[in-house]
Amino acid sequence: MAYDLYYWPMIPGRGEYPRLVLEAAGVAYRDVARLPESEGGGIAAMQAFIGGKTGHLPPFAPPFLVDGDLVVSQAAEICILVGERHGLAPKGEAERLFARSIALTTADLVAEAHDVHHPLGVGLYYEDQTDAARERALGFREERLPKFLGWYERILTRNPAGSGYLVGDAMSYADLGVFQTMAGLRYAFPRRMKTLAPDYPRIAALVERVAAAPRIAAYLASDRRMAFNEDGIFRHYPELDAD
Amino acid sequence: MAYDLYYWPMIPGRGEYPRLVLEAAGVAYRDVARLPESEGGGIAAMQAFIGGKTGHLPPFAPPFLVDGDLVVSQAAEICILVGERHGLAPKGEAERLFARSIALTTADLVAEAHDVHHPLGVGLYYEDQTDAARERALGFREERLPKFLGWYERILTRNPAGSGYLVGDAMSYADLGVFQTMAGLRYAFPRRMKTLAPDYPRIAALVERVAAAPRIAAYLASDRRMAFNEDGIFRHYPELDAD
Repeated sequence: MAYDLYYWPMIPGRGEYPRLVLEAAGVAYRDVARLPESEGGGIAAMQAFIGGKTGHLPPFAPPFLVDGDLVVSQAAEICILVGERHGLAPKGEAERLFARSIALTTADLVAEAHDVHHPLGVGLYYEDQTDAARERALGFREERLPKFLGWYERILTRNPAGSGYLVGDAMSYADLGVFQTMAGLRYAFPRRMKTLAPDYPRIAALVERVAAAPRIAAYLASDRRMAFNEDGIFRHYPELDAD
Repeated sequence: MAYDLYYWPMIPGRGEYPRLVLEAAGVAYRDVARLPESEGGGIAAMQAFIGGKTGHLPPFAPPFLVDGDLVVSQAAEICILVGERHGLAPKGEAERLFARSIALTTADLVAEAHDVHHPLGVGLYYEDQTDAARERALGFREERLPKFLGWYERILTRNPAGSGYLVGDAMSYADLGVFQTMAGLRYAFPRRMKTLAPDYPRIAALVERVAAAPRIAAYLASDRRMAFNEDGIFRHYPELDAD
């Protein structure tokens, strides 16, 4: 089985969430839009898919994953599918469903982190909405971030398995999602995240443990791992950060 | 089997999405926060759950659904679970996964509809962000709405089953989600939705068909169905609407 993952090639963005699950699962996949056009890759291949020109059920937007006739879009849903298929999801039903809820809640946090720099609209440049972004960033740093991080810390603390993972006794796609989100938040809001760090020791330990997992460590050291940048979801604009 | 659904009792909001699936499935459920405290209901019962005082895995926010030891949060995930369990989801794997993607994409549209009136932050009053809301509403009406509606119309047109439903040959939770979202959009943006209507005849036909499904028709006529209001996700602020 070989998966085709489609996402914008210039940013980690939401594509990085399924990419991490594929890497951690050790399954073969093609990162189609990052391949040369001569190999059937590039953005044009992705657009053809979204435009419905391939005969598949057309996804709304990247990222999406193709496996033969199957198409799955929405980053969280791809993570759930790959995680549940390839041993990166809890086995018990209650834990399996809770992992799904965690992934979707993380997707909400990611959307809010994006809206910090685009509060007035995705179709406008950041430079045309900096005042609004400053205001939105304040509430995000002071209220929303602690609310989300507090929840992760709480479920890590209360996980009946006491494993140091969010749910169940082993690493799941839910943990990978929090890992990537923490990386993004630390990139975008380094001052605020440093201030908050002492309150969330279990999240910090989780991030370290995920980074040290052999397949993830190998991936992070590879040239497949992209750096964050100011075209992506998590952007470092110093004027939006504070202690 | 009896489900307990938890959501804010004063607004339809995101709780209405799982509520519609439960109603369409004809399964027994308690709408806990709308029950009197003497019957174990009320907001306090919901807060106890979120605060982790019930011994369950604590959800981040309402809505959430409880079925014995199982807790599922995130509106789309609840719809997926109930829909797949109770005959409101496609049977084939490709269609089943596509329905999930549709539900999550609809959740994104709902979040954007909310952000129109709260662009600067959920913690601020609408009255303190009306100028920003006007700007965000413009892009939502002109670009985002047609993008989402165009996608629904396209997949209705291309559904290989030709059923008039979004995916597969029968009504699924994906259709119920679009039904509720269209109701909300028509409430919040009546002028804009009237202008756009001729471009999306298949969505309009879907909405009518869902409304006429016997269990849905009975539910809509009942006092369990709540009206939209200006505390909810879909709010009618005339200054944010236009032709």
